[in-house]
Amino acid sequence: MKRIMLTVAYDGTAYCGWQYQEGRPTIEGELNKAIEKLTGERVEVIGASRTDAGVHALCNLAVFDTESSIPGEKFCYALNAHLPEDIRVVASAEVTADFHPRKVATRKTYEYRILNRDLPDPVRRLYTYFAYGPIDVTRMQEAAVYLEGEHDFASFCSPATQALTTVRTVYKVEVERVEDEIRIRVCGNGFLYNMVRIIAGTLLEVGRGRLAPEDIPAILEKKDRQAAGPTAPAHGLMLIRYEFEDKSFIL
Amino acid sequence: MKRIMLTVAYDGTAYCGWQYQEGRPTIEGELNKAIEKLTGERVEVIGASRTDAGVHALCNLAVFDTESSIPGEKFCYALNAHLPEDIRVVASAEVTADFHPRKVATRKTYEYRILNRDLPDPVRRLYTYFAYGPIDVTRMQEAAVYLEGEHDFASFCSPATQALTTVRTVYKVEVERVEDEIRIRVCGNGFLYNMVRIIAGTLLEVGRGRLAPEDIPAILEKKDRQAAGPTAPAHGLMLIRYEFEDKSFIL
Repeated sequence: MKRIMLTVAYDGTAYCGWQYQEGRPTIEGELNKAIEKLTGERVEVIGASRTDAGVHALCNLAVFDTESSIPGEKFCYALNAHLPEDIRVVASAEVTADFHPRKVATRKTYEYRILNRDLPDPVRRLYTYFAYGPIDVTRMQEAAVYLEGEHDFASFCSPATQALTTVRTVYKVEVERVEDEIRIRVCGNGFLYNMVRIIAGTLLEVGRGRLAPEDIPAILEKKDRQAAGPTAPAHGLMLIRYEFEDKSFIL
Repeated sequence: MKRIMLTVAYDGTAYCGWQYQEGRPTIEGELNKAIEKLTGERVEVIGASRTDAGVHALCNLAVFDTESSIPGEKFCYALNAHLPEDIRVVASAEVTADFHPRKVATRKTYEYRILNRDLPDPVRRLYTYFAYGPIDVTRMQEAAVYLEGEHDFASFCSPATQALTTVRTVYKVEVERVEDEIRIRVCGNGFLYNMVRIIAGTLLEVGRGRLAPEDIPAILEKKDRQAAGPTAPAHGLMLIRYEFEDKSFIL
């Protein structure tokens, strides 16, 4: 028996999110099916981030145990033959038997992309949120600074959360304009339900002048979802990076 | 009566190409339908480039005549309400009554994108051609130079062509690596059927070492489709720019 960690990239457009749901297309469900086809074993992968319906990822993590003789680093090639084109295992490795992807110290980075121009772009419609009109990136950058650090992010969390605590540490919130796109990159030790999308929706309100950068501390203070801006749509969001403080779990 | 020129962007994935075909989804068919919904007039747009099934565009051109009182520059906003999300009119203008988009001196630029890394990327799968293994961009650049200028491109043309002459002028062929993508940009006064895709397929053979840059003149000389490399898949191709020598036809 060995434990395998998969790094999984996907286009979330066609899926009801990461987490398995009976009878509906999910990333987890497709991975379980592909592993069964490859190894003959029924497994339920453990995911690192349960991304919402429509959210994309370059590098989500999935872990499972297998008796297969396939070497850890070869699983990516073998599994891709059994996966739909919009899900690819981009790396794989054997890990220690006690490794759990949600119980290890990590820095995760999400990127939210806003397409800010006069008219939409068909070839970017699935991966950016289209928003026309003036958006002031400098104001968004000023607001972003207030979100960095350890805070109670209750105002930036869907009331549907099941988290025991709403305190999280955000290491960095970067906002930059790249031609006609505004990219918001949020790096943290973990995120609450819808947290990055609410951060993006709130920063967009600041960029549009409906909130001031200086409003952010009071929004955090209220610990009330109603105080923050709207939840930005899922399709603009992508999980782009996972960093581990200690990689000794990779064999 | 006035003549309107539309600049049209589209994701070609779901379409059987630009040109109207009875009962099948085409860009032209969708534009005709949208114009009829908006103006009540039955029209058949005249397109500038009849792109193949699966090919994308940032700026193809379509022209039609209308009695509508909508100002030329407003058609883009009005038509988008009647078009599917993967087709957007990104600009519109009234043009002179005799303007024909295929009978005017233009420089067109196509871009072909190759994703060159170890494993595919789901979020770029619809807009890049995935090719793993070593590809030498310097060799491709050396080969590209031989394609520039006025040549008989019969070797780089599908035998299905209906063109009267296979002589075309290619102003520039650029090849560059941008991170894990190789981008081939071909600018010319007009292109034969499949020409850019055969150029991309042939340059890729050079990049892989199966052809030498110095083979290109002999391939051109043969005027035989069999002499060139394979036709690269449609989904890596995008029409990215239209330049007019004289813009006085825009009113």
